[in-house]
Amino acid sequence: MNNVTDRPRILVIHGPNLNLLGTREPDTYGTTTLSDINETLQRTGDGWGVNVDTFQSNHEGMIVEAIQAIAGSHHGLIINPAAYTHTSVAIRDALLLLKIPIVEVHLSNVHKREPFRHRSMISDVCTGQIVGLGSMGYLLALEFIVKTLRKSSAST
Amino acid sequence: MNNVTDRPRILVIHGPNLNLLGTREPDTYGTTTLSDINETLQRTGDGWGVNVDTFQSNHEGMIVEAIQAIAGSHHGLIINPAAYTHTSVAIRDALLLLKIPIVEVHLSNVHKREPFRHRSMISDVCTGQIVGLGSMGYLLALEFIVKTLRKSSAST
Amino acid sequence: MNNVTDRPRILVIHGPNLNLLGTREPDTYGTTTLSDINETLQRTGDGWGVNVDTFQSNHEGMIVEAIQAIAGSHHGLIINPAAYTHTSVAIRDALLLLKIPIVEVHLSNVHKREPFRHRSMISDVCTGQIVGLGSMGYLLALEFIVKTLRKSSAST
Amino acid sequence: MNNVTDRPRILVIHGPNLNLLGTREPDTYGTTTLSDINETLQRTGDGWGVNVDTFQSNHEGMIVEAIQAIAGSHHGLIINPAAYTHTSVAIRDALLLLKIPIVEVHLSNVHKREPFRHRSMISDVCTGQIVGLGSMGYLLALEFIVKTLRKSSAST
Amino acid sequence: MNNVTDRPRILVIHGPNLNLLGTREPDTYGTTTLSDINETLQRTGDGWGVNVDTFQSNHEGMIVEAIQAIAGSHHGLIINPAAYTHTSVAIRDALLLLKIPIVEVHLSNVHKREPFRHRSMISDVCTGQIVGLGSMGYLLALEFIVKTLRKSSAST
Amino acid sequence: MNNVTDRPRILVIHGPNLNLLGTREPDTYGTTTLSDINETLQRTGDGWGVNVDTFQSNHEGMIVEAIQAIAGSHHGLIINPAAYTHTSVAIRDALLLLKIPIVEVHLSNVHKREPFRHRSMISDVCTGQIVGLGSMGYLLALEFIVKTLRKSSAST
Amino acid sequence: MNNVTDRPRILVIHGPNLNLLGTREPDTYGTTTLSDINETLQRTGDGWGVNVDTFQSNHEGMIVEAIQAIAGSHHGLIINPAAYTHTSVAIRDALLLLKIPIVEVHLSNVHKREPFRHRSMISDVCTGQIVGLGSMGYLLALEFIVKTLRKSSAST
Amino acid sequence: MNNVTDRPRILVIHGPNLNLLGTREPDTYGTTTLSDINETLQRTGDGWGVNVDTFQSNHEGMIVEAIQAIAGSHHGLIINPAAYTHTSVAIRDALLLLKIPIVEVHLSNVHKREPFRHRSMISDVCTGQIVGLGSMGYLLALEFIVKTLRKSSAST
Amino acid sequence: MNNVTDRPRILVIHGPNLNLLGTREPDTYGTTTLSDINETLQRTGDGWGVNVDTFQSNHEGMIVEAIQAIAGSHHGLIINPAAYTHTSVAIRDALLLLKIPIVEVHLSNVHKREPFRHRSMISDVCTGQIVGLGSMGYLLALEFIVKTLRKSSAST
Amino acid sequence: MNNVTDRPRILVIHGPNLNLLGTREPDTYGTTTLSDINETLQRTGDGWGVNVDTFQSNHEGMIVEAIQAIAGSHHGLIINPAAYTHTSVAIRDALLLLKIPIVEVHLSNVHKREPFRHRSMISDVCTGQIVGLGSMGYLLALEFIVKTLRKSSAST
Amino acid sequence: MNNVTDRPRILVIHGPNLNLLGTREPDTYGTTTLSDINETLQRTGDGWGVNVDTFQSNHEGMIVEAIQAIAGSHHGLIINPAAYTHTSVAIRDALLLLKIPIVEVHLSNVHKREPFRHRSMISDVCTGQIVGLGSMGYLLALEFIVKTLRKSSAST
Amino acid sequence: MNNVTDRPRILVIHGPNLNLLGTREPDTYGTTTLSDINETLQRTGDGWGVNVDTFQSNHEGMIVEAIQAIAGSHHGLIINPAAYTHTSVAIRDALLLLKIPIVEVHLSNVHKREPFRHRSMISDVCTGQIVGLGSMGYLLALEFIVKTLRKSSAST
Repeated sequence: MNNVTDRPRILVIHGPNLNLLGTREPDTYGTTTLSDINETLQRTGDGWGVNVDTFQSNHEGMIVEAIQAIAGSHHGLIINPAAYTHTSVAIRDALLLLKIPIVEVHLSNVHKREPFRHRSMISDVCTGQIVGLGSMGYLLALEFIVKTLRKSSAST
Repeated sequence: MNNVTDRPRILVIHGPNLNLLGTREPDTYGTTTLSDINETLQRTGDGWGVNVDTFQSNHEGMIVEAIQAIAGSHHGLIINPAAYTHTSVAIRDALLLLKIPIVEVHLSNVHKREPFRHRSMISDVCTGQIVGLGSMGYLLALEFIVKTLRKSSAST
Repeated sequence: MNNVTDRPRILVIHGPNLNLLGTREPDTYGTTTLSDINETLQRTGDGWGVNVDTFQSNHEGMIVEAIQAIAGSHHGLIINPAAYTHTSVAIRDALLLLKIPIVEVHLSNVHKREPFRHRSMISDVCTGQIVGLGSMGYLLALEFIVKTLRKSSAST
Repeated sequence: MNNVTDRPRILVIHGPNLNLLGTREPDTYGTTTLSDINETLQRTGDGWGVNVDTFQSNHEGMIVEAIQAIAGSHHGLIINPAAYTHTSVAIRDALLLLKIPIVEVHLSNVHKREPFRHRSMISDVCTGQIVGLGSMGYLLALEFIVKTLRKSSAST
Repeated sequence: MNNVTDRPRILVIHGPNLNLLGTREPDTYGTTTLSDINETLQRTGDGWGVNVDTFQSNHEGMIVEAIQAIAGSHHGLIINPAAYTHTSVAIRDALLLLKIPIVEVHLSNVHKREPFRHRSMISDVCTGQIVGLGSMGYLLALEFIVKTLRKSSAST
Repeated sequence: MNNVTDRPRILVIHGPNLNLLGTREPDTYGTTTLSDINETLQRTGDGWGVNVDTFQSNHEGMIVEAIQAIAGSHHGLIINPAAYTHTSVAIRDALLLLKIPIVEVHLSNVHKREPFRHRSMISDVCTGQIVGLGSMGYLLALEFIVKTLRKSSAST
Repeated sequence: MNNVTDRPRILVIHGPNLNLLGTREPDTYGTTTLSDINETLQRTGDGWGVNVDTFQSNHEGMIVEAIQAIAGSHHGLIINPAAYTHTSVAIRDALLLLKIPIVEVHLSNVHKREPFRHRSMISDVCTGQIVGLGSMGYLLALEFIVKTLRKSSAST
Repeated sequence: MNNVTDRPRILVIHGPNLNLLGTREPDTYGTTTLSDINETLQRTGDGWGVNVDTFQSNHEGMIVEAIQAIAGSHHGLIINPAAYTHTSVAIRDALLLLKIPIVEVHLSNVHKREPFRHRSMISDVCTGQIVGLGSMGYLLALEFIVKTLRKSSAST
Repeated sequence: MNNVTDRPRILVIHGPNLNLLGTREPDTYGTTTLSDINETLQRTGDGWGVNVDTFQSNHEGMIVEAIQAIAGSHHGLIINPAAYTHTSVAIRDALLLLKIPIVEVHLSNVHKREPFRHRSMISDVCTGQIVGLGSMGYLLALEFIVKTLRKSSAST
Repeated sequence: MNNVTDRPRILVIHGPNLNLLGTREPDTYGTTTLSDINETLQRTGDGWGVNVDTFQSNHEGMIVEAIQAIAGSHHGLIINPAAYTHTSVAIRDALLLLKIPIVEVHLSNVHKREPFRHRSMISDVCTGQIVGLGSMGYLLALEFIVKTLRKSSAST
Repeated sequence: MNNVTDRPRILVIHGPNLNLLGTREPDTYGTTTLSDINETLQRTGDGWGVNVDTFQSNHEGMIVEAIQAIAGSHHGLIINPAAYTHTSVAIRDALLLLKIPIVEVHLSNVHKREPFRHRSMISDVCTGQIVGLGSMGYLLALEFIVKTLRKSSAST
Repeated sequence: MNNVTDRPRILVIHGPNLNLLGTREPDTYGTTTLSDINETLQRTGDGWGVNVDTFQSNHEGMIVEAIQAIAGSHHGLIINPAAYTHTSVAIRDALLLLKIPIVEVHLSNVHKREPFRHRSMISDVCTGQIVGLGSMGYLLALEFIVKTLRKSSAST
């Protein structure tokens, strides 16, 4: 993780199987890899004066701990819990402990897929969701958080 | 509606009770009025070289007809069907007839509200959703559509 | 609508198909017409020193707008949304914007009819309900609102 | 119970925990006591030429027997079964044996409370309901029954 | 609407989005337009000695009023409420007021589509249904009503 | 309760509202009164060499205690819990403590009535049921228990 | 089938797998065979002056036809549809055509078994049920029908 | 079955209990017998140049085999599976093997009857349905198939 | 009830059938009687300086009244509503009126028993639950309340 | 059926429509016919020293009777009840009478098909299932039963 | 982990996010930290002559393995699976392998929280539950296990 | 993992708690250990010319990664996800990325166990299932994959 003093920090969490993004099932998810997405996010964040940290794990417990770890150090969270979206109370409980803007992102439109993907265990504990807009969803989420941070720092 | 030749056109539809936005229940929806939102969208769109048309109605049938009317003339749709999100098959059927990017927007995080608001009759016939990000959701939706249109015109 | 200065105003809204009241299905709804009911309400209101305005529409959107229109001008609402009782989130959302006493009235006992009529989309956003007491239900609702207004003006 | 010859008699039944009305939870139910309500009902009934008997019990079986006891002697029933509203088939069965107007009354708007309070075991065997209008609900119910009795005796 | 004295009159109602029939989604609904269907129905009706009136609307309230309007004037109703089939209690209530043969028609086989299209709010208040037989469904419905009218007038 | 030494004893329990049997709703339950039934049961039992005790209560708690009281003293139980059939876990728990034949009896065919009457809280803790055979059901239940007792005493 | 002139005739139908009764699963169903039951029923019927015909089939269609065949010739029906109890609309439809007393019998207490055995497709189209009383259930059903026939012939 | 060379053949299948049509329950199904219907269908088919074969069975397995048997020999199927409509996966599976127009017909409006009759196991594997139009439903189905066959042979 | 001045008082309520504890079904509930439990509770409470009152009833209404009676006089409540746990809204409503620590106790692990025992009508209006720990559950509940009272009196 | 003394016998039952296997819908089920499968099974069984009998029927009742018939004569059962898998309690009841290894086989992966195919009425009364492995599923089932028989005869 | 020869050993497992106890959300969970709780448990256990081991993990798999590891070495288990309570079949399966007393503990009253927290995947495989009694719940659970161990060692 | 050039490779994945197989609960799962099963699979695979790799984990994330790792390197997968079968969308998503035969194996017949074990999150993304056939299920699955690989390589 990079670390530049005095700039706001934003964490981006990618859930299980997203490490394979762009390498398989291109029909559903395109050919952009996770590392492409992360680089774009970091470069864009840099342009906007914020530090973007990224994290991917296939382990529910490690995502829980990544969320626990940013209390105090980060100012925004973008999370795509992938499969854990639909089953993890543990990630929900970890998110409940944060007091920063959280945006839930899904690459594909989950409402076009199996019924069990329509239920999110975390939607009501996030600030909002961006769904089905592909990798652009991450950038729009970043933009939302950056502007929100600016607005609230402006109003102080 | 304004109309500038040769520029892409995007329609923004606001559903029932959104005409009162900013004038009541400021705790839930803030003080930004619908006309503030529409002006920002049009100015921003103008800056990006697209025409933004806006439409608000409390009538399901008129929203159906507004959707029907843009086939052929417009290149993207942003729709916040408000209360009709949860009940209108007619709006869904009208959307099914379009072949352009459609982004469903909700100002508040519907997943934090009554259970009947968790179900959307249109989510699976839109490209994607932006939920709970306030009026910034409309701008992000506009940005998504503009970039998508550029990408596809670039690839032609 | 009649308009007498300085007297409290109460709106009575009748939903779809109630325009035919008393002209069809007398076994279920009796022979009293909607205009009979409205006259009785207005005369009774007059006796109690309040203005009673009445409104009927078969259009969900127009009922939404009638509700929107009385914010600031009226002091009580009696609403029989008829068929829209069971399906309209839009009417519910409009009612949520009012800060005055609202009484939901149903002529017949909906609990004796089809199961889908047992669910009301608005019951929990009204002050209360009067169900199954025929056209007398409107008068009792009026009496409740008038007495409530008197009590609160007395306590000021 | 009082008993005046030749005047119609109406029974008012109050279910479990209503004996404490006005003495606890004033935020939800106000400070009016059950005995205040009963006195007002009896005085009002007296003014209208009817005898009002009142009865309160925390025992389902005793409410059943109170209902059984009025067949033949009384001309109307007002019943607020409180908690038994949602669970008692026995009270429903007793009500089925009566051929007089029955009005179900609830002080608070049950639709704003827990889901299990939305279901009434007796709604479809009563004439109608008055819900959420506080202690005024009893008076309106009394008024309905008195007027209904007058109308039917007038038409004989 | 045309109007020839002394001949039975039959109304055909087409619900929302059917105005676009034949102009979009030809794979699902073919290329026959609504006006083709209406002409065929009128010509065929004419051959059988009945007047066929047709009506299309995207507005629930206007369909309600079209149904209200034919009491007394028409002898049969063919209705394809399209999207409102699955959601409209108001249309159901209007149909309940008619005492003439009513045939519900659907162009496509709704049972092959989304689950929410399997439920009709009006099926049990119509005489019967013709589903999935394309535009021929309207003609068969017309034939049924004409023959039914003949039989009942023959038996008088 | 009568008490003849050395003869088997059988208790018959009648639930709420059965005290009115034969005096109201003759269309549903006939004109036979509960006391007619009890006499016939006692006379018939006498002819078969068994003592029949009978008990009726509108109180759930008293039925629980009547069941508790017969452990050790009685050899069979016939129970028609009426309304409590569908709601009482307490009666079920009391029945669980008995080790004698228990027959559940219902006068009317509960399966022809409201859905909530189709569920019995006690069916699976009784030996069996006789439903819908009117007052003859009690006699057949008595016959079953007497024959069962004879068979088991014969086999000792 | 035996056939004695002028005596009432009663048919007993046994459903699938009951042909094996008494030969397998003695723990659940005892050692009495179907032919034992049939003989007892016929002998008992004979003593009461009625002819008892019996029929067993593993085929739903043949049970349907056995029911169809007795219209006009028989005066009562005892039916244990076994597995078809829970699944057969066809047997239900056949029973709907009869105008004679019908008693549904089950040897074991179905309420103690799998949940799908708690639902009967025929309970509400029979006169009543006898459940869980073993083979004695058939005899009690016979007794009910014989006494019912006597009563109604006595009252003619 | 009749068999005329070179003419299209259409099979009509009638399910369980339809053999009794017109002989019982005339209030629900009228007095027309199945053989009346079959004769009318054959005569009408003859007039239109098609052979109509008919088949009735109370046996699910035989209906399955009747469907299996027409692959290759027939050009259309009209099926009223009666009670098996709601329960038979086997008939559904047999229908899945056909590549010809199939019309499901029901004499009565099943949506006015018990809830379990609202579900059809075959609706989504047929071309369409005609419901509630009495025996005329069969003739309209025949007309649909004949016209469809003509159209497709015309277009070859 | 015993009554020692200046010491905190705690009520223990035992619901229906618990009067038989230890005398029947020893496999499920052991041989400890209710009076053993009450003595142990009182002796233990005495050692901790609190008065323990105990109450058992098979009557829902009497349990309601026992709860009503302790407002003001007692400082803690231990309640095992037994069968009424799963059905009584009236007991829930009475508990809602108390402002003292309430512990719900069940002797057996209800989650190992029938599904209807998994639902408690009172769990969310108590402080907490102790389930399945046998009669020791009562003592642990007592310990919790005593320590809680000490802590809060210490902090005053 | 072939019959060789002293060798174990295994029955293979094929349910409705499987007689057409390989002749229709090759995309779903391949071109292997039922008789191909049966021959392979018999030849393979022969090689392993067991007799394989096969049986196909479209009739639920005949499958019931085929199962009844093998008690005592056969040592294992392989059953693919096809459509009856999802609906037949009668086949389940027949299987309950057997005390031999039973393997349920499905050619296609039923979990990829309609939801009603996910439920099997017999899964919990069989030893196990082999699903979705095509006709090889039968052979694997045979192998399982043969090895199981060998193991148990070895351990005697 | 500490390890003192010959003394009973009890493991306490804390699930995901409990590592943060006392450091965040003090309103819901107080300021006691997990290490406070563990120390109190160990000190108290020490006083009672038992060794208390403690374990916390955010990883479902590690909790599974912690449970696996104590078979043979420990004599009691206290487990608060936190978020995994509601979702983990794996933890349930691990618990199924133990033959020692297991007490499920929850700090807050889960029945006052979201509906998905009302379901526990492990309740029926534990000895019992202590819910909503804060950190005292752990101590009461420890007391229960210690006393249970003493009783069973006393009875040996 | 062993690795022999040019031979097909098959991975066998065992889910949580299977590491204890054969060491606990022998009544349910027998005494065969996981290492017995793995050795038999490897020896058998070796005899058939394929390499069998095995993997066990109690961690959902590690199973996800084991599945990810074999894309490209292996030609078949046998997976018994044990407890994760019923809850893991993450494992499902990983399986979706493979294009090789996948057989889901369960040692016990899950349909005889708790209802939540009847649902598999992965059944419809595997080729098929073998359930309830004990450890032989793994060998039959291996046989299926080997034969399938041979067939497809033969057809190339």
